[in-house]
Amino acid sequence: MRILVTNDDGIESRGIHALVHAMRRLGDVIVIAPDRQQSAVGHALTVASPLRATPFSRDGEVIGWAINGTPADCVKLGVSTLMEQRPDMIISGINHGSNTSVNAIYSGTVSAATEGTLMGIPSMAVSLATFDESADMSLAAEVAYEVASRLLSLDLPLGTLLNVNVPPIPREDYKGLRVTRQGHSEWKDRYDVRLDPHGKPYYWLTGDFVTVTELEDADDIVVANGWASITPLHYELTNFNILETLRDQFA
Amino acid sequence: MRILVTNDDGIESRGIHALVHAMRRLGDVIVIAPDRQQSAVGHALTVASPLRATPFSRDGEVIGWAINGTPADCVKLGVSTLMEQRPDMIISGINHGSNTSVNAIYSGTVSAATEGTLMGIPSMAVSLATFDESADMSLAAEVAYEVASRLLSLDLPLGTLLNVNVPPIPREDYKGLRVTRQGHSEWKDRYDVRLDPHGKPYYWLTGDFVTVTELEDADDIVVANGWASITPLHYELTNFNILETLRDQFA
Repeated sequence: MRILVTNDDGIESRGIHALVHAMRRLGDVIVIAPDRQQSAVGHALTVASPLRATPFSRDGEVIGWAINGTPADCVKLGVSTLMEQRPDMIISGINHGSNTSVNAIYSGTVSAATEGTLMGIPSMAVSLATFDESADMSLAAEVAYEVASRLLSLDLPLGTLLNVNVPPIPREDYKGLRVTRQGHSEWKDRYDVRLDPHGKPYYWLTGDFVTVTELEDADDIVVANGWASITPLHYELTNFNILETLRDQFA
Repeated sequence: MRILVTNDDGIESRGIHALVHAMRRLGDVIVIAPDRQQSAVGHALTVASPLRATPFSRDGEVIGWAINGTPADCVKLGVSTLMEQRPDMIISGINHGSNTSVNAIYSGTVSAATEGTLMGIPSMAVSLATFDESADMSLAAEVAYEVASRLLSLDLPLGTLLNVNVPPIPREDYKGLRVTRQGHSEWKDRYDVRLDPHGKPYYWLTGDFVTVTELEDADDIVVANGWASITPLHYELTNFNILETLRDQFA
């Protein structure tokens, strides 16, 4: 089994190396990941400049390539050009930070798995729901292993990926896996306005992540309650519920 | 009526000025757009550096702000901080290039409208389906006006935006508006591998946009046949069709 591992925190991050370690129990792992932090890049592609692929070593062993691009670039360039054979699965993560609810649409981690799915390859994103840089990755790595080991046998429909989020809690408090829907938490944005030494303003994005609707079986709620969430996502964005109404309105 | 106009091609682009001109027939227009080309940025946010907002003039008149960020940044910063009052609608475009089918997930133009929708503001993306930089924008501007003038009365559900694509054809060949679903065309990626003067490879993204499934009423097909497409999109990404199956598999 060939497993492509990528992420959006960059090839040097702790999360991706915990994931590589876990995935080696399943097969041959190749790492193709951004050469630097790419959080909140969404599903960005590099189109106006060329990409570079630099062989990347860890502990004296070449484990893959570092790319000067986004997570989606890594998957596209990796599968189409760098890898000699197509991977059997693509696992993205372990992200430092939750990708539940609306975070999924800003997430480079999720976009890499979406890109894999677009190529017809079973794909999964894994995130640990804390921004604590020193957080213990072992539970998330174990969850990643458990879900990835079953990914091919799930026989997901074309175009569907798994978005897995793991709570940042001690193992003894962990309750297990739950299949969930994307939650309805959102960011209430604020910009911190500061003045530079010349008196001109600049704006830092900040804000609070708040639960808008407490849906049963929503990923955000389930993770807050000590479960790891598995949400099947797809990139079919049409709101079919209003298609007929809208047709009547424009008839 | 206050209308926020943005785009991803940058505040200097021809498309945004055609859109501003059209929207002024409907109300007061404020432009808050990226200071440079931001195509294929997806739903990226700027989180690791601060934003700047520079007043932007055209024909001697201040029409808004240029932002050193992405389309989603422009909407977040604009609505939360720069605008004194909340806009009644957000119109993004006119994009130089189609945002039908899978393009919607890579599109900064669509992401700006999605961001508006997340804030509860009726929002719409408009694209002209050609990369020809000198293409005639007048039909797309007229379609933008026609749909925007009806946007508030459509009473779209919370979380749904309109993604409008206009064919690059003479007015006499234009067939009218059609409500559509997101099509199933995809990019077959190729990377053009070149060697730099030092003999090291670099990779340019290229590829072909191909129709995978000819769905009836798909935006890509409808636009190719001379209609302007209106696709209602939402950011509910859960694949509800497989939720129960997946629950059984993980039970």
